Amino acid sequence: MKVTFVTSNEGKYREAKYIGERYGIEVEWLRKEYLEPQGNDLKEIAKKSAEILAEKIKKPFFIEDSGLFIPALRGFPGPYSSFVFKTIGNEGILKLMDGIEDRRAYFLAVIAFFDGKNVLTFEGRVDGKIATEIRGDKGFGFDPIFEYDGKTFAEMGDKKNEVSHRRRALEALFSYLNKLKI
Amino acid sequence: MKVTFVTSNEGKYREAKYIGERYGIEVEWLRKEYLEPQGNDLKEIAKKSAEILAEKIKKPFFIEDSGLFIPALRGFPGPYSSFVFKTIGNEGILKLMDGIEDRRAYFLAVIAFFDGKNVLTFEGRVDGKIATEIRGDKGFGFDPIFEYDGKTFAEMGDKKNEVSHRRRALEALFSYLNKLKI
Repeated sequence: MKVTFVTSNEGKYREAKYIGERYGIEVEWLRKEYLEPQGNDLKEIAKKSAEILAEKIKKPFFIEDSGLFIPALRGFPGPYSSFVFKTIGNEGILKLMDGIEDRRAYFLAVIAFFDGKNVLTFEGRVDGKIATEIRGDKGFGFDPIFEYDGKTFAEMGDKKNEVSHRRRALEALFSYLNKLKI
Repeated sequence: MKVTFVTSNEGKYREAKYIGERYGIEVEWLRKEYLEPQGNDLKEIAKKSAEILAEKIKKPFFIEDSGLFIPALRGFPGPYSSFVFKTIGNEGILKLMDGIEDRRAYFLAVIAFFDGKNVLTFEGRVDGKIATEIRGDKGFGFDPIFEYDGKTFAEMGDKKNEVSHRRRALEALFSYLNKLKI
């Protein structure tokens, strides 16, 4: 089975391709930017983006969107994680968390899959907490301040990919696609 | 002359109607939510939103979008001011500005006007700085931490409307429309 991944991010495509192979699914890459609406809910944003894109792409495809959510900050930075990272960065998040006891946080990935008719969503989530300082030099984005099982994602290297939110969302999609084949 | 303002915010409509009257322009209200794409540039976002909306609304209309920009935070919260206000709020901005000397900030409003054929944009900007504490109980959003000429917008009450970014953008639009009539 073949499915198209629409993303402008080569790293995301490679990860999807690698995981797809284990499920006997061939992931094709369509390198393309697309319109993402503003919104407070990552799932709604991904769904809407896929619906708009489905008007142009007629065959089955999926897109992926993800973010860091901090309950003590009412879900900030959430759907705007990328903008927040580019502006206030890891230092800004640490400053905002200064003096806050509840440091719980999670990464959420949402995949919106267009099956040729409807858009379905799949989620992957990994729970951790905001570290008290920047640690590690692998990974990207908020990885150096996201602590999972004692280490930050930026300290874990490849091990991160075994537990990541994106992997979990991809596995949910590929499991679904495999069941369809039966 | 008549022009339609598409907004779900009654306060914004009333302000536009009031200012329009001074220019002999009748502002009609179309209460409607519309799709706003994500992006780093407020002008691009407003333009794109109007272009998408123009596919449905055939007559001339305008929309307005605004945000608070803090250069020392690389433009944060910018286009996502509303989400940032709802999550980390004024307290969050003050925390981020703690220890930062350059407290300059500005409010920017962008109006995107569809003339029946093309989308034109008009900007209004007001420069001030981030106060060191929350002051005043009028206005809304970031008004209590935005200081203009010694007072915060939330301390100024109606006087704010005389200098506001939104007013300046509306005046730019209405001046343009008035010139067209000649």
